[in-house]
Amino acid sequence: MNPAIKIFVTGGTFDKEYNELNGTLYFKNTHLYDMLEMGRRKLDLNIETLMMVDSLEMTESQQEYLVKRCKEEQSKNIVITHGTDRMVDTAVALGKTVKDRTIILTGAMIPYKFGSSDGLFNLGSTLSLVQTLPCGVYIAMNGCYFPWDKVRKNRDLGIFERIE
Amino acid sequence: MNPAIKIFVTGGTFDKEYNELNGTLYFKNTHLYDMLEMGRRKLDLNIETLMMVDSLEMTESQQEYLVKRCKEEQSKNIVITHGTDRMVDTAVALGKTVKDRTIILTGAMIPYKFGSSDGLFNLGSTLSLVQTLPCGVYIAMNGCYFPWDKVRKNRDLGIFERIE
Amino acid sequence: MNPAIKIFVTGGTFDKEYNELNGTLYFKNTHLYDMLEMGRRKLDLNIETLMMVDSLEMTESQQEYLVKRCKEEQSKNIVITHGTDRMVDTAVALGKTVKDRTIILTGAMIPYKFGSSDGLFNLGSTLSLVQTLPCGVYIAMNGCYFPWDKVRKNRDLGIFERIE
Amino acid sequence: MNPAIKIFVTGGTFDKEYNELNGTLYFKNTHLYDMLEMGRRKLDLNIETLMMVDSLEMTESQQEYLVKRCKEEQSKNIVITHGTDRMVDTAVALGKTVKDRTIILTGAMIPYKFGSSDGLFNLGSTLSLVQTLPCGVYIAMNGCYFPWDKVRKNRDLGIFERIE
Repeated sequence: MNPAIKIFVTGGTFDKEYNELNGTLYFKNTHLYDMLEMGRRKLDLNIETLMMVDSLEMTESQQEYLVKRCKEEQSKNIVITHGTDRMVDTAVALGKTVKDRTIILTGAMIPYKFGSSDGLFNLGSTLSLVQTLPCGVYIAMNGCYFPWDKVRKNRDLGIFERIE
Repeated sequence: MNPAIKIFVTGGTFDKEYNELNGTLYFKNTHLYDMLEMGRRKLDLNIETLMMVDSLEMTESQQEYLVKRCKEEQSKNIVITHGTDRMVDTAVALGKTVKDRTIILTGAMIPYKFGSSDGLFNLGSTLSLVQTLPCGVYIAMNGCYFPWDKVRKNRDLGIFERIE
Repeated sequence: MNPAIKIFVTGGTFDKEYNELNGTLYFKNTHLYDMLEMGRRKLDLNIETLMMVDSLEMTESQQEYLVKRCKEEQSKNIVITHGTDRMVDTAVALGKTVKDRTIILTGAMIPYKFGSSDGLFNLGSTLSLVQTLPCGVYIAMNGCYFPWDKVRKNRDLGIFERIE
Repeated sequence: MNPAIKIFVTGGTFDKEYNELNGTLYFKNTHLYDMLEMGRRKLDLNIETLMMVDSLEMTESQQEYLVKRCKEEQSKNIVITHGTDRMVDTAVALGKTVKDRTIILTGAMIPYKFGSSDGLFNLGSTLSLVQTLPCGVYIAMNGCYFPWDKVRKNRDLGIFERIE
C-alpha cells in the first residue's frame, strides 16, 4: 500500500551540531534516523545523504546534482531535507524541470539536537504530504505547504509565506 | 487558503503527566499548545478540550458526546487527539455516522512531557493529512494513515496495522 | 588525588521507565551511565547495581544487604542512588552501623528519562559532597544535604526537611 | 543553617542561545533560573547577572569589576558562572586578591538550551562545593574541582586538568 518514499538529505539547520571545542556550529551525520526512530515511523523509506551543507553554501553544481538525482529517482514520492535560506531556490530549480513526481522540501528553524526543534513536526508533516499531494514540487514548513512557485521565505520573521 | 482546522482534545498518552508526589501518571492540562509552539505552526486552528481521559476510561456517553460534536462542527477538517487503546473504537463510531468531514484521530505511545515522545511527529503528520485527505474518518500514527474500517491496534507490538 | 568513588545503584525514581505497551512505570537498566556521560564526569568511579527497586518495595533483606555491602566496601566514599520514599529509613540503618565512611544517598523526584528531571543536578551535587564531607551518612537532595539523623521526607510537599 | 549563597552570572556557554533568524549563537537572558527550577533547589540563593559575555570577549575592566564585586560581597560563599575559555584567567585574578571567601567558578561545554548540556550537573556540583570547601578560589567542572593555581584548560580535549 505504501510504496517506498525516497528521502534525500542535504543538511541544513535540521542537522547542525554544536562543536564544544570551539563553540561553532557544524555538520556531522544526519539526525534523520534518530528523528524517524522518535517518530516510530512504520513507513517504507529509502534514505540517502547527498550532501551535508548549509544551504547558503550549496554550490550550483550541488544543486544541479540534486535535481538530476530527483529526475532519475525511481520512487514517485521524494522528500528533501534542506536548509531554509535557499530552499525556495532549489524548489524553483526542481519545479521547472521535474513534473512527474511529488517532491517536498522541508527543514527546520532550530537544529534537532537543540531540544526545542520544529524538525520532528515538519518531518511528520512532510512524510504525510508526500503520500497525499498530487505530482508537483512543494515546500512544507510549520503545518503549511506551498507550491514551488507560490512561496518565499520572509527572512525578517523566519517564516515561509504564500505569494500569488 | 487554509480554513480553520478544528482540534478536539480528549486526553490519552499525549497528555499524561508524572505526579512526583506519588509516582503515578495523571492528566492536568493538554500539552497541545506547547507542541504547536514547538512545531511553530502557522495554520489557523480552533482548539477545544472536550475531556482529559485515558481512552480505557472513556465512557459510552463521552464517546457519544465526541461523535455529536464532530457532527455539529462547522469546520470540514477535524483532528482528534485520543488515547491509543480505544482509538479504533472511536474511529468506528465516527466512521459509521459522520460522512461529510475529514476526521483524523491521532495520539502518542509516549507522553509528550517524557522527552522522547512520538507525539510531535504524529501531530505534524495529522495536521497535514487533514488538509489533503478526502472526506472520511482515519487514524494517523507513525507516518501511516488508515481508514477507520481497515485498522486495528496490535497491543503486543504497540502499533497500528492495516486489516483488509 | 581523587580516589575511586563507589556508587551503589538501587533503583528509585531516578531510573523509572515508561512502558508504552501498558502505560505503567517500570525498571530496566540504570540511567546512571547516561547521566554521567551528560555530566562529562572526569572522576574515577566504580559503579555497581545492587538492585532495581522502588524503595517502597525494598525488602528488609535487601536493605540489610545494602548496609553489609557498604560496610565491606574498600572505598571510603560511597554514593547510593535510592528511591525517595524510604531514603530516610535506609540512611538511618546505615548511620547506626557504618561510621568510618562518607556515604551519601540521593535520588530524584522525576525520572531521568522524563526530560525535566532533577536527577542530574542531584547527582552532580552528591558526587561533590562525597569528596568533601567528613565521615558520616547523609542525604543530598536539591542542593541541600542533611545528616542521617536530622532529616525527614515531607510527603505532602515532596521535599526533604531538616529536623532537630 | 544555609546562609545565602551569592551567584554572579557572567554568561559563557551555559547561557548561549541559537538565533534562528541567522543561525548564530548569542546571549539573551541567563538560564540559571530555569536550571535551578529543574534542580528544585531548596537553597537560599542571591543571584545577580553582572554581564552576559563569551569569556573570550570579557574585557579587562569587566574582569576587574567582577573581582571588585567578589571582594565587596557580603556572603562568604560565591559561585560564578563563566565561559570556559578564560575561566582560568579569572580564577587567577580572583585567587591572587580574594582570600577570605569560598569562590567557585563553573560553566558548561554545551549550552543549557541544547538539551544535552553538562550545565545542570556542574551547577549541582558547584552549589555543593561552595557549602563545603574551605576559603579559596576554585574551578569546578565535570565532577572535579581544582584550586585556582593548579588548573589549566586543555583546549584540544575540551577539559580542565590539574597541574602541579
